[in-house]
Amino acid sequence: MKKFLLLLVFCWCLVLVLPAQQNIGGKPQEIHSPVVQGGCKVRLQFLAPGAKSVQVKGDWLTQGASATLKKNDQGVWQYLSDSLTSDLYTYQFVVDGVTMVDPSNVYVVRDVSSLYSLFMIPGAREENYGVHDVPHGTLSYPWYPSPFLKMKRRLAVYTPPGYEQSTKSYPVLYLLHGMGGDETAWSTLGSSTAILDNLIAAGKTRPMIVVMPNGNAAQSAAPGHSSTGFAPVSFMLPHTMEGTFEKSFKDILTYIESNYRVKKDKADRAIAGLSMGGFHSLYIAANAPGMFDYVGLFSPAISARGGDSSAIYQNLDRKLIAEQKAGYKLYWIGIGKQDFLYKEVADFRQKMDSLHLPYTYHESERWHMWSNWRDYLTVFTQKLFK
Amino acid sequence: MKKFLLLLVFCWCLVLVLPAQQNIGGKPQEIHSPVVQGGCKVRLQFLAPGAKSVQVKGDWLTQGASATLKKNDQGVWQYLSDSLTSDLYTYQFVVDGVTMVDPSNVYVVRDVSSLYSLFMIPGAREENYGVHDVPHGTLSYPWYPSPFLKMKRRLAVYTPPGYEQSTKSYPVLYLLHGMGGDETAWSTLGSSTAILDNLIAAGKTRPMIVVMPNGNAAQSAAPGHSSTGFAPVSFMLPHTMEGTFEKSFKDILTYIESNYRVKKDKADRAIAGLSMGGFHSLYIAANAPGMFDYVGLFSPAISARGGDSSAIYQNLDRKLIAEQKAGYKLYWIGIGKQDFLYKEVADFRQKMDSLHLPYTYHESERWHMWSNWRDYLTVFTQKLFK
Repeated sequence: MKKFLLLLVFCWCLVLVLPAQQNIGGKPQEIHSPVVQGGCKVRLQFLAPGAKSVQVKGDWLTQGASATLKKNDQGVWQYLSDSLTSDLYTYQFVVDGVTMVDPSNVYVVRDVSSLYSLFMIPGAREENYGVHDVPHGTLSYPWYPSPFLKMKRRLAVYTPPGYEQSTKSYPVLYLLHGMGGDETAWSTLGSSTAILDNLIAAGKTRPMIVVMPNGNAAQSAAPGHSSTGFAPVSFMLPHTMEGTFEKSFKDILTYIESNYRVKKDKADRAIAGLSMGGFHSLYIAANAPGMFDYVGLFSPAISARGGDSSAIYQNLDRKLIAEQKAGYKLYWIGIGKQDFLYKEVADFRQKMDSLHLPYTYHESERWHMWSNWRDYLTVFTQKLFK
Repeated sequence: MKKFLLLLVFCWCLVLVLPAQQNIGGKPQEIHSPVVQGGCKVRLQFLAPGAKSVQVKGDWLTQGASATLKKNDQGVWQYLSDSLTSDLYTYQFVVDGVTMVDPSNVYVVRDVSSLYSLFMIPGAREENYGVHDVPHGTLSYPWYPSPFLKMKRRLAVYTPPGYEQSTKSYPVLYLLHGMGGDETAWSTLGSSTAILDNLIAAGKTRPMIVVMPNGNAAQSAAPGHSSTGFAPVSFMLPHTMEGTFEKSFKDILTYIESNYRVKKDKADRAIAGLSMGGFHSLYIAANAPGMFDYVGLFSPAISARGGDSSAIYQNLDRKLIAEQKAGYKLYWIGIGKQDFLYKEVADFRQKMDSLHLPYTYHESERWHMWSNWRDYLTVFTQKLFK
């Protein structure tokens, strides 16, 4: 058996392993990238003897910035970061102007129409976002019927540890993605299942169901998971932010409340979203006073102007007042100081103040990025259903 | 609102879209890759003015072969395939010796420790593997306790359309991956959820639950989904093919039969696997006569020699005879003519013949590859539970 296994491994190595990093100029090249050094710095490497420039764009750098890799005499481009705080980081190489993932790193994630390579820096946030030896919930991808949109649509559902073995009902958080995202965004880029698992295990968050729908009314499912196959991914889809998704939200609520053991009262319903999903959350909640006790706007794309064509967006002030009259326990707004939507959010807070509507404001560092949204989810879920 | 949306899109474009394909030497470069032309040829492009050679490795080429891209005067390397038969294809570029995915293609899949870019050629197999407008089952990733392995472990479960709304019980197929694979392999590379959805919708396959466990006894979950974080991915793990996974299989069966509405008799249980998973299926079934009416060995890594140290692997002949005596309806073996395990499988068939054990043999073209395993799954599941 051992001999057979060795043969097997040898044959597979020929097929799979050797071509993964070939030898240039007869010298063996062992490229390990990324490597986390000293627990807080990342070393990146890229083999490209013929390239004229290799840069890295990563979300530990200043917004929009890139850093330059330096080539050694073996044609290996290298980079060592400064000390980084604990987080999940994404990056891309730019090789003579072409953006690509790190070919030595098998961990990638799609954000809208781009792929990014991943690494994690240990510490406080890794405690929240990493998979640890705690009881785990289940991530599922069911399809629900949307009579309003006249299609079957895919969504992601997190059920907490013990859900399958229990008979009790749980509170629900509806968690919405941003523009160009889809039902996979929160469970991949957002680390939502690990965050919930870890917070529930630590007793910091109540066990809850988290529903992560697809907020693009024109789409039945994420790219690669619908009948459009492997079509190019669009950032801007038709029927986005013009009221259609908000009107179709009742189909999601109906499906979840008919197919999962959920509590069906205001005290056990929360809605939150990032960017476009914050905009969706704002208007879904404002149009259904008495539906949610908890609303979370993460770097929300709110215009705060009203007067738009869809009835969903009209008379916002009156709707917000009605929402508060029906009662809510938490209206949570989070944004980064450098976010391009900072001013929009400041205007919205001014509106809330002038209407004497209570809210909790969370201002973080940095900009419109998943690093903030993972953190907001961690903070927000600890305040729910208490 | 429109003006705000335009601002929003503009800002995001700056962040996300422009850097994705930068301009070299002042000339705009629009790289579209892959593009399926005329329904059956694929055109690939890669921008690398400084590269000395760009090749493509793809599973439409002869095993182990690569094809050369040609550079045009704008530094764009190009390739046009011959006419391809309908299938899901994977490929990688080799740029001056470095293997990488196509940076213009957002659709990638991980196979063990490598990433591959994807495209689909329309036609018969796309009808099977693509997502179509049919009722969809649910893909879930629950964790089950394994008292034998002393860990919580993740698995993938496909429940057929209507499972959540029904009260009836379903037959179960246990579907195992190959060496270096994990619980995500069949649902990503194997297109298992689309295959089942499409066959069930066409009335060709009975609705069933498909359980896709992790066959690496040393692993709790797929890379990136366990507490090992983003560690390098190993092809060869400890405690592989030495009896441990086979012994732990009863923990999976117990979990599924306790937590899902499944039929619990031989007539409603099937087990199948590819390569190492075929080896696992062979021995799990042989050590539990009367457990499965259906066994599927897809390009199985069977040594067919017996005499190995673990009791699981000893006295195979006697076990196979006992298995047939307890009764099975289908013992299905599939392999490609160019598979490096062809001879092993021929020897095993000879053993089955000499023991007068019935089996169905399916010989396909080509080698040890997912193209065959998706097809075998399509053929095999149509024969189950009838």
